[in-house]
Amino acid sequence: MLTIDKIYDASNVLKEVVRHTDMIEAPKLSAKAGCDIYLKTENLQVTGSFKVRGAYYKISQLSEEERSHGVIACSAGNHAQGVALAATHCNTKSIICLPEGAPISKVEATKKYGAEVCMVKGVYDDAYNRAIELRDEKGYTFIHPFDDPDVIAGQGTIGLEIIEQLPDVDAIIVPIGGGGLIAGVSYLVKHLRPKCRIYGVQAAGAPSMFNSVNDGKIETLPSVNTIADGIKVKTPGDLTFELCQKYVDGIVTVSDDEVAAAILSLMENQKLISEGAGAVPVAAVMFDKIPEIKGKKVCCVVSGGNIDVNILSRVIERGLKMNGRTANITIALSDKPGQLATVSALIANEGANVVSVSYSSTDLDMNITDCYLNLSIETRDFEHIEQIKQALTKAGFDVVI
Amino acid sequence: MLTIDKIYDASNVLKEVVRHTDMIEAPKLSAKAGCDIYLKTENLQVTGSFKVRGAYYKISQLSEEERSHGVIACSAGNHAQGVALAATHCNTKSIICLPEGAPISKVEATKKYGAEVCMVKGVYDDAYNRAIELRDEKGYTFIHPFDDPDVIAGQGTIGLEIIEQLPDVDAIIVPIGGGGLIAGVSYLVKHLRPKCRIYGVQAAGAPSMFNSVNDGKIETLPSVNTIADGIKVKTPGDLTFELCQKYVDGIVTVSDDEVAAAILSLMENQKLISEGAGAVPVAAVMFDKIPEIKGKKVCCVVSGGNIDVNILSRVIERGLKMNGRTANITIALSDKPGQLATVSALIANEGANVVSVSYSSTDLDMNITDCYLNLSIETRDFEHIEQIKQALTKAGFDVVI
Repeated sequence: MLTIDKIYDASNVLKEVVRHTDMIEAPKLSAKAGCDIYLKTENLQVTGSFKVRGAYYKISQLSEEERSHGVIACSAGNHAQGVALAATHCNTKSIICLPEGAPISKVEATKKYGAEVCMVKGVYDDAYNRAIELRDEKGYTFIHPFDDPDVIAGQGTIGLEIIEQLPDVDAIIVPIGGGGLIAGVSYLVKHLRPKCRIYGVQAAGAPSMFNSVNDGKIETLPSVNTIADGIKVKTPGDLTFELCQKYVDGIVTVSDDEVAAAILSLMENQKLISEGAGAVPVAAVMFDKIPEIKGKKVCCVVSGGNIDVNILSRVIERGLKMNGRTANITIALSDKPGQLATVSALIANEGANVVSVSYSSTDLDMNITDCYLNLSIETRDFEHIEQIKQALTKAGFDVVI
Repeated sequence: MLTIDKIYDASNVLKEVVRHTDMIEAPKLSAKAGCDIYLKTENLQVTGSFKVRGAYYKISQLSEEERSHGVIACSAGNHAQGVALAATHCNTKSIICLPEGAPISKVEATKKYGAEVCMVKGVYDDAYNRAIELRDEKGYTFIHPFDDPDVIAGQGTIGLEIIEQLPDVDAIIVPIGGGGLIAGVSYLVKHLRPKCRIYGVQAAGAPSMFNSVNDGKIETLPSVNTIADGIKVKTPGDLTFELCQKYVDGIVTVSDDEVAAAILSLMENQKLISEGAGAVPVAAVMFDKIPEIKGKKVCCVVSGGNIDVNILSRVIERGLKMNGRTANITIALSDKPGQLATVSALIANEGANVVSVSYSSTDLDMNITDCYLNLSIETRDFEHIEQIKQALTKAGFDVVI
């Protein structure tokens, strides 16, 4: 059973292994959002995610006999690394079942923390079923990623740290996947600081808790799709659903483009790498999803930072576009010499930077000598883009997009 | 004059404005380097760099009259933002002289912290000369970026924090540009922990302090070139040179490719954005520039995080290549159908991922029907790349590079 005492106990136990992560003020984000934003930096946690808290507390609570058999989990992500590290610290064997397609980097990371990896043909559900089979065959203890009171108590220790680091916090914004993190944080905070508001954020492409709480019953999504893979969960847990219903003040969703913009903002303004799931609270603030927080002292839990750098490159591109920092402009040109020179000079004059140029002439209704000029440019913001387009139009160019 | 008391005083004064930045263990870097690495995260400092410490302490020590006139500085980077924020906090006007070509983003950031920006035609030296002129005309106080005892005392507060956070530290590794940071840290640490070793790191393309200390006299480089623009300094300061000679145990240099690999490692393993200058201590550790630190407890000062995200994208690409995580392979093909399919299957079989493919046939000494196949692939490490090349060769393909 989840109790406040259990969360205090978890907090003591976790001291051995887990970092008391820093709370960092985010002045630029605050100025933009019209409230005082602070970041609880669980991306700087060991293993790069808060998940190690719940996993470690859970494993620490097993009996000697249970620990002698070992633990098993199913995950390709942060939970796997959390369980692996926690089990290694508790001198317990850990087995992680992974679907065959899991990225090499995650498999390697999990092995490095000391787990035995069991690759299972098929998708996540197949890996999960195999884990349950192995549990029954071999007597391993299954470590659920979220729907377990000990796991939830471990995650709830973040709530304790927040109210210690920011005693007058008005609102806490937390990512929701299965709901373990927000269940622990909201349970703790609503008991100790009942006036503090707790908001959850889901990816628009995986709104399982959002739908379930709105409809008053647990629902399963047929499919989920988001760059925030850490919160890509089809069905909330029973216990986490109950706790969310009771203690969470509101749940909102954010789009993948909003998440990309938030990841970029955390990089540029706070020098922090966040994964998609970790950035959803910041996305909610940046895109005004929770109007009630204006003027308040708000803590965003940046829950993790495990994002593939190749994806990060693409997120940077996308985020720059979302923030008006890059733009693609297409101009219809008639076949006259010197047009590119004129366009380039106009753009330079507006203080923007052309990074790529290409021509195309695929439209059948164009004159055969005419073409489109496609420009990628670096800009300051959306106003700047508009200003450039107006300057081009004023100079007689036909700006198509 | 620089004294230990002055650094203690700075530490008290700075409490009002400056963050006591976190010290974070870097286990993956430690495993690779064979020592215990900790990071002093000045990239998470307000303004994204340690520079605000020296600037703030310096301005706080000015007389009422000096402050009523205002301060002036010349910088396109971290010093500008530090001076602007510090002056604003001290209710003092600040003027920052910038060479005309300075990036828009830096100009905007400096303005946002409250400075008046004065754009000067020409290069850095012209902006510097204009700042000195304005100082003489208007009675502003010039805030030197490094060669000033108060500025050095402010930077020295990092040394105090390090020995408080890591009392048994064996070695501290510090970036060197003009030398203000290492002057303050080494002076403090050698007085309070004489056994702790202090190492400096410069960019190979800007080794001004390295050369000067080696030759026993201050030298000016004709030109400097490095992605670590925060430490791109042609001439060390008089005072910083003297302190480096006296208190620094060794200076090493790192290449831009090594810096890129370090920036990438900090992103992937520590979830931290570092600028080039901030990453040079980590580069020195990763590439074994300081063999004496094996088995020791080592603190790397990550001095700042202000890097343009567009440059970051390129650094990611470069860093992936430096770490063997991507590779370009070129194969000479004779004109037979199905060759790409065979090559692709071979590479997939080795567990690598093809991300781009192109053909070229520019060599005049090739058969007109033959061509080169250029592949970009994602790989695990250099061993993996070698293994793929061997598999291709074994299958009869002519691997050119």
